[in-house]
Amino acid sequence: MSEPNVQVTMEGPVCPLPLTHDEQIVMGHGSGGKMSHDLIAKLFFPSFDNPALRAGDDAGVVQPSPCTRFAISTDSHVVAPLCFPGGDIGKLAVCGTVNDVAMMGATPLYLSVGFILEEGLPLDTLTRVVESMRAAAEEAGVQIVAGDTKVVQRGKADGLYINTTGVGALPLGMEIGGANAKPGDVVILSGPIGDHGIAVLSARGELGFEADVQSDVAPLNHLVAAMLDASDQVHVLRDPTRGGVATTLNEIARQSHAAIVIDEASIPMRPAVAAACEMLGFDPLYVANEGKLLAVVARADADKVLRVMRATRYGSEAVVIGEVKAEPANRVLMKTQIGSTRVVDVLMGEMLPRIC
Amino acid sequence: MSEPNVQVTMEGPVCPLPLTHDEQIVMGHGSGGKMSHDLIAKLFFPSFDNPALRAGDDAGVVQPSPCTRFAISTDSHVVAPLCFPGGDIGKLAVCGTVNDVAMMGATPLYLSVGFILEEGLPLDTLTRVVESMRAAAEEAGVQIVAGDTKVVQRGKADGLYINTTGVGALPLGMEIGGANAKPGDVVILSGPIGDHGIAVLSARGELGFEADVQSDVAPLNHLVAAMLDASDQVHVLRDPTRGGVATTLNEIARQSHAAIVIDEASIPMRPAVAAACEMLGFDPLYVANEGKLLAVVARADADKVLRVMRATRYGSEAVVIGEVKAEPANRVLMKTQIGSTRVVDVLMGEMLPRIC
Repeated sequence: MSEPNVQVTMEGPVCPLPLTHDEQIVMGHGSGGKMSHDLIAKLFFPSFDNPALRAGDDAGVVQPSPCTRFAISTDSHVVAPLCFPGGDIGKLAVCGTVNDVAMMGATPLYLSVGFILEEGLPLDTLTRVVESMRAAAEEAGVQIVAGDTKVVQRGKADGLYINTTGVGALPLGMEIGGANAKPGDVVILSGPIGDHGIAVLSARGELGFEADVQSDVAPLNHLVAAMLDASDQVHVLRDPTRGGVATTLNEIARQSHAAIVIDEASIPMRPAVAAACEMLGFDPLYVANEGKLLAVVARADADKVLRVMRATRYGSEAVVIGEVKAEPANRVLMKTQIGSTRVVDVLMGEMLPRIC
Repeated sequence: MSEPNVQVTMEGPVCPLPLTHDEQIVMGHGSGGKMSHDLIAKLFFPSFDNPALRAGDDAGVVQPSPCTRFAISTDSHVVAPLCFPGGDIGKLAVCGTVNDVAMMGATPLYLSVGFILEEGLPLDTLTRVVESMRAAAEEAGVQIVAGDTKVVQRGKADGLYINTTGVGALPLGMEIGGANAKPGDVVILSGPIGDHGIAVLSARGELGFEADVQSDVAPLNHLVAAMLDASDQVHVLRDPTRGGVATTLNEIARQSHAAIVIDEASIPMRPAVAAACEMLGFDPLYVANEGKLLAVVARADADKVLRVMRATRYGSEAVVIGEVKAEPANRVLMKTQIGSTRVVDVLMGEMLPRIC
């Protein structure tokens, strides 16, 4: 796609290039979609190979001793702008990692925080971001037990970036993961889609009008705990962030070697999000969420799980949006509102850069 | 120092500004010295308050259950250039976090890796960095179990930044920390100082000549394991990275409410490092190391510990450089080569930005 790149800035042994489709990093490598998956599959998995990483779930599961198991997840946050309706980079950084740990069925306990600050950042901004982090950590019930601060020169960052890494306790016998969807299971979505992506776009002024949309950014660990209290038949949990519901469902379908069939009419969406997507030509199925989860649950327990979800703050609009089938394996299909069925693929390229 | 800053880019409740000495982030906030300590003490500790964080050690110690304890540490790496004699940002990112976990007496087991990549980064560069990380993780014996990749636009980063977060198993009863230095203990340094800082400066072309200095970047966990096998009287371990030996010793003196007295003549330094420091007007006590440790050990066990250190690859040049005294509490003193005694303070401002 681009010209062969001849920059050589590193010493050391020359490694064979495992990636041939492109010579440089492009924005799409950070999309959470197809190019991200390729980078992971072709570079990171072969280099850092181990079962926890290769499982490809929201967090790595490790068991350092027979009686101890935990889930570890990391996310760097580069959202622009730093503040948007409903949240800011600080709240996002805490919730994003708390949620990834919770999606394994683990109880998030500890976070580390790594700041990369740009010289000239107003301390007032940092102070507000830190206060957001404190409040979100308090709501989630996690402790921030390790931190690091680096400063780079003006122009070498964009205000601030935040990495959070989370560790959660994972009970023995808790086996939730993308590979566990079974034909006959139902797919539950915890609420309306696309709020986060559209709220960030609105804050960037890219809508051309002010959408009345708040980001859904929220810690989902208490919602997950309620679901797992109610049922031991929750097979998959995942939060549809970068790449949206479409990409997340494709990940589950592929990991489980199953088909997922969703019903377009059942997918909740706020009118303002639908309007913004239509105007911009975005498919809302690919727009990021930061306070929603998808659950794949045994059909027999679906009503019970839905009931407890709807009794919680962040699950009050939960609905069934589809089901798992055996065929066509590894695919996501959608029954459209006009009665046809279409394939829903992973996000290609980059739709909304720096959304989280 | 600077004009009052009126940029307001964040929404949400206005928080009182806890920092009054400066209105903006400056490079010194990332130095690891006095300004970093101020930012931590005035902003991060009050907001994220908990015992693990407030201990102020290289890693946070947590105990999620009676029989399980572990150490968690995080570091974002922003070194420029990405490659330098003896290493690169990938090796640094793995070793830096492995070492921080090891300095608690913990066995590093798991790492997470968060990449922030700049659009346009040659994939060749990323591939070589990943290969360095793989090799360093293999040498240290740690698994990379979680990862994340974000991409920012051209000009919004400087090639790539890497966050690593490490988790290590900490045996019950292992109580190593900066607060445990006791009068009568001796201070051991594992080898010559300043190699990393001077190697990076050399790679930047800032020396005006090519210094024959390699960074000392290395994983120290096996060295630590040998020391702890030999003695249960290792009271403090810390790696003198940003801020150098002087800043690290001050941290220990303050945490332990003790005095540390070091002997200038005993501190090992390569001639090329001494020459570069003299030419640049740097005090080598403040220059960063990435493969050295300081140990505070009971006098009775000092010879035994030194012996096992010297039998290892990264401790072969270990020496005693000083001792712990009761008074003057919280201070570091140095007997100079000309026979006087001077106070050694923490690093003020910023000497070598983006050294790690």
